[in-house]
Amino acid sequence: MIHLSVLKWVPPFARGSVKELRVRWALEEAGLPYKERVLTPEDQNAAAYRAVQPFGQVPVYEEDGFQLFESGAIVLHIAEKSEALMPRDAQGRARTMQWMFAAQTSVQPSIDQVTALDLFYGEEEWAALRRPGAEEFLRRRLGQLAGRLEGREWLEDRFTAGDLMMTTVLRDLRHRDIVAGFPALAAYVKRAEARPAFQRALAAHLALYADAEKAEAAA
Amino acid sequence: MIHLSVLKWVPPFARGSVKELRVRWALEEAGLPYKERVLTPEDQNAAAYRAVQPFGQVPVYEEDGFQLFESGAIVLHIAEKSEALMPRDAQGRARTMQWMFAAQTSVQPSIDQVTALDLFYGEEEWAALRRPGAEEFLRRRLGQLAGRLEGREWLEDRFTAGDLMMTTVLRDLRHRDIVAGFPALAAYVKRAEARPAFQRALAAHLALYADAEKAEAAA
Repeated sequence: MIHLSVLKWVPPFARGSVKELRVRWALEEAGLPYKERVLTPEDQNAAAYRAVQPFGQVPVYEEDGFQLFESGAIVLHIAEKSEALMPRDAQGRARTMQWMFAAQTSVQPSIDQVTALDLFYGEEEWAALRRPGAEEFLRRRLGQLAGRLEGREWLEDRFTAGDLMMTTVLRDLRHRDIVAGFPALAAYVKRAEARPAFQRALAAHLALYADAEKAEAAA
Repeated sequence: MIHLSVLKWVPPFARGSVKELRVRWALEEAGLPYKERVLTPEDQNAAAYRAVQPFGQVPVYEEDGFQLFESGAIVLHIAEKSEALMPRDAQGRARTMQWMFAAQTSVQPSIDQVTALDLFYGEEEWAALRRPGAEEFLRRRLGQLAGRLEGREWLEDRFTAGDLMMTTVLRDLRHRDIVAGFPALAAYVKRAEARPAFQRALAAHLALYADAEKAEAAA
């Protein structure tokens, strides 16, 4: 049985964005059942958890005693088990990895720059000064990605773990209207979100925070 | 024959850091010969190059007509060909990928935040205000990584492509004394840099800019 570490509580803006969601989605696409291991902040900081995950983050994946962290590595490990996420030939595999790395290293940083200003540093004096340059860089990067998707359904000729990672990363901008400015990207994210495997993963992820949402709404 | 796209000219601070260096290093560890394809800025922006690499960056790897970008994906593709970079068993492979992703997504962003302030935004008003928080976050992250390396030579029980990526990322701080504050990390980078394959890769990379350095020194 596969176990996945998840967080007992996250702030509202992080619901729908925590990095375990992409792993749940990969497991759903691959048709692999899993169980959650729900962590409190104390669990995250425990020496035993840090010995596996030095940065104290989620998710950690465990299967018959084998433990693995980094959502990218976990998704790739799952993709190796399932053709639903990655073609079997060497070139198809390499190109899936190409887009997985592109999502996390060529696109995510430009998104993180902007979301950090939106969510964490909005009150700080330097944030207002930094914003125009960060948003300009992001729009340029998104324009380059949109060019690739012009006339295509997915980054390659079929859905792969590269699309899973790329659309997950783009969803981090859903509190803004930036992606809507690139119709090819907006349609791409919508196609990904419409996949039944994504819907199941998102529902399971959000269910963790349903009680918290009710309590917050009542407060 | 393998071809690797490289940049005809980069500014002095980027010499020793361009992302083709990590791919050269992987090829040297694997014992695979390669040829350079030297790009001018016009070549980088040409439609044919952008059709392969939407972001216009280096390196692009080509082997018998098969083209691949993203240094992480290329290093992994090379690692699949050579046990010198990655064990052959599924768990050893997965853990190599874990550290490759950790280098690029859990460590590199905290380094990039600081190097961007050092190299690109030093003159901007917001940069001075941003610096203390960015450096504090980086030192916390490096401390977590140093904990993993305490008493170890490499991140796992042998050198892998995970160490190649992690030490490459840490070298981006070599203009500062931050890594020296973590003796386990400083020794780790030194061990990596002492590898003959790294030395050969660095020499080939720097040779590209030898004429420019001479001209700059004379100017």
